[in-house]
Amino acid sequence: MVDVASEVRRMAQRARQAARQMACAPPGAKREALLRLAGALVDSWPQVAAANRQDLEEAAASGLPKAKLDRLRLDERTRDDLVAGLRQVAEAPDPVGEVESLVVRPNGLRVGRMRVPLGVIGMVYEARPGATVEASSLAVKAGNAILLRGGKEALRSNRALVDLFRACLDASGLPQDAVQLVPHTDRQAVLEMCRLAGYLDVLIPRGGGELIRFVQENARVPVLAHAKGVNHLYVDEGADLGMAVRVAVNAKAQRPATCNALEKVLVHQAAAAEFLPLLARAMAEVGVELRGCPRTREHLPAVKPATEQDWEAEYLDLVLAVKVVDSMDEALAHIARYGSNHTEAIVTRDHARAWRFLREVDASLVLVNASTRFNDGFQLGLGAEIGISTGKLHAYGPMGVRELTTTKFVALGDGHVRT
Amino acid sequence: MVDVASEVRRMAQRARQAARQMACAPPGAKREALLRLAGALVDSWPQVAAANRQDLEEAAASGLPKAKLDRLRLDERTRDDLVAGLRQVAEAPDPVGEVESLVVRPNGLRVGRMRVPLGVIGMVYEARPGATVEASSLAVKAGNAILLRGGKEALRSNRALVDLFRACLDASGLPQDAVQLVPHTDRQAVLEMCRLAGYLDVLIPRGGGELIRFVQENARVPVLAHAKGVNHLYVDEGADLGMAVRVAVNAKAQRPATCNALEKVLVHQAAAAEFLPLLARAMAEVGVELRGCPRTREHLPAVKPATEQDWEAEYLDLVLAVKVVDSMDEALAHIARYGSNHTEAIVTRDHARAWRFLREVDASLVLVNASTRFNDGFQLGLGAEIGISTGKLHAYGPMGVRELTTTKFVALGDGHVRT
Repeated sequence: MVDVASEVRRMAQRARQAARQMACAPPGAKREALLRLAGALVDSWPQVAAANRQDLEEAAASGLPKAKLDRLRLDERTRDDLVAGLRQVAEAPDPVGEVESLVVRPNGLRVGRMRVPLGVIGMVYEARPGATVEASSLAVKAGNAILLRGGKEALRSNRALVDLFRACLDASGLPQDAVQLVPHTDRQAVLEMCRLAGYLDVLIPRGGGELIRFVQENARVPVLAHAKGVNHLYVDEGADLGMAVRVAVNAKAQRPATCNALEKVLVHQAAAAEFLPLLARAMAEVGVELRGCPRTREHLPAVKPATEQDWEAEYLDLVLAVKVVDSMDEALAHIARYGSNHTEAIVTRDHARAWRFLREVDASLVLVNASTRFNDGFQLGLGAEIGISTGKLHAYGPMGVRELTTTKFVALGDGHVRT
Repeated sequence: MVDVASEVRRMAQRARQAARQMACAPPGAKREALLRLAGALVDSWPQVAAANRQDLEEAAASGLPKAKLDRLRLDERTRDDLVAGLRQVAEAPDPVGEVESLVVRPNGLRVGRMRVPLGVIGMVYEARPGATVEASSLAVKAGNAILLRGGKEALRSNRALVDLFRACLDASGLPQDAVQLVPHTDRQAVLEMCRLAGYLDVLIPRGGGELIRFVQENARVPVLAHAKGVNHLYVDEGADLGMAVRVAVNAKAQRPATCNALEKVLVHQAAAAEFLPLLARAMAEVGVELRGCPRTREHLPAVKPATEQDWEAEYLDLVLAVKVVDSMDEALAHIARYGSNHTEAIVTRDHARAWRFLREVDASLVLVNASTRFNDGFQLGLGAEIGISTGKLHAYGPMGVRELTTTKFVALGDGHVRT
């Protein structure tokens, strides 16, 4: 126990020193390190793939479920996506040092906000080695140091990837300790990271609800958490019902295990009789099981009844709960009660109700006439993302490079004093 | 004990309901409520002043130190400042609902960020009733609800002010529970506020280091904390020494008990012989005691030696520690080690060093050729402030109306789905 604590603390101290250098790193050096890593992923892929194979074999032998094995797997398509992502991040504008404007105060003092790195980022995540590259490249671009604690099944893969990145940092004149992998994969290491007040500027937990709650309850450092997505689609009176079905099917079934997948449909009573049979047919075609409120079941008697648990559930599976509502007010109240501030959508033709929905619904992404699946850093134009924040402080929604920075005030005077 | 917990929780539930209404409140209603309060402070001043007089008498009898009695006092000048501040906040643009731009993605989806309230703000502070008006008016302008827990010495004053505000909210068609005062002034009430996960979107502690540490260690909700200001002025080689002295005197002595007051001077060795006697004379005139490093004392033998504690101290008093440094590198390293990320300044004539200082120093406000006393929401052009954040997440520096909001993503499509 003592060893984990002191080793994590020593790593955090090195990260803090590296962060001071990274904050002043030339933009060209950061770009170069990211491009080098893109090259190294191609050139040194055999060793990464070998490490990943070992991880996969061990995980399969220990009975890791297939969905988790898929997340652990680094195939050539994943590699190509990571390389493309790295090149995109490398070539994006460097955010550090940007001052959007200098305002001249009445006394002549010029005041602005300069974008600066957060400092040291901690990330605790599960066995998804692609996230190692995505998170550390975003952290480096934003001028930070990062301390990574990944899932135990991915330890060899993560080590291979982090070793490559550290060599690229070194070759570009940047401190290797800007990217460090905590070699301990037990809960004790997470707890130590939670306690690194004064070392970590932010801790980002990504993974299951249990991990996130553990971090939130134990953290003595600021946390940007990614909670579950209980996402709704409200089908308004007078909506284009064909569009509503297409959006619902895409949102539910395109990748049902993601946090931006649709979990509930709310339909206005005036649209229910026509919409529900269309929805039922389309969802049956893609293998989605429906669960309905009593009024839904008047139209679709074969559907299982939805219970209170259904309104609260994040299924992450081919299941969808459906409710008929009297009015848009009832839909908004239902979303306010059961939604998880993640992704909420309306399909409507009515301009005023579209804007009312955009304004009143409290979620990290609110959509009109579009699929909930767009809640993603790439899709929203941020480039890569390090996670999706469902808390409101600092970042609400996908977090890209900019969300790994902050702004400080700068003021330029010529001897200004307060009177 | 049980009563405090359940009462605080009930208040927080009411705040959450009020916050949902406030988030959609018409801008005109919020403006009206703030202008009504400005009027009510004038019209109903006698009852506020009477409550404050009782607070002051009781606090004086219990031996509250003079500096704290001064902070507790609401005189007519404070009233006029509060009224002017309220009018300024009322007439400022309403931030809620603003979308800076809608970007059209390659697939035609329009994506933007909409500014929205944080939700429910908790504030824990000491016996400064002016802060009650400042904090609650900013919270209301930004569309939030606020739960206030002020110092026990100010309870009657706070109650009078909050009652006035609640009546003004009601008269403007807004929920009274958008502004609530927790009637318990013991530590138990603070602890309960720390535990309001799911009710509070942010908790802002303002006050002494001990209160802030208590909140940081116990909070299960996001915290925006205002830590101490160990603020430096670095006097560069070749600086205008007359300017350096004027800036140092203003920064140190204009209001020494504030968090943006100067606590340390670092002077380049090439400027020390000429600068230190000028500094010593000027500081003596305003009653400031100097404490010096060994090289400072070579030039100023009468000065007391500075100890390690001096470099760490926030005096908040007429004391200043002075150190001679070999180089700007040494000054930057000293600030990185002893500074508290609050306010740091340089006096220089050199353009490159000015910008190096601006870029490399990690503080909520970094100044060139200006007094540290400018770290203040009014001075930097934010209007009123609810505090100064010295953490980097969400806000770094003075927090005004904008810092009491966040942004959510909005997306407008015409049936967009992911492929």
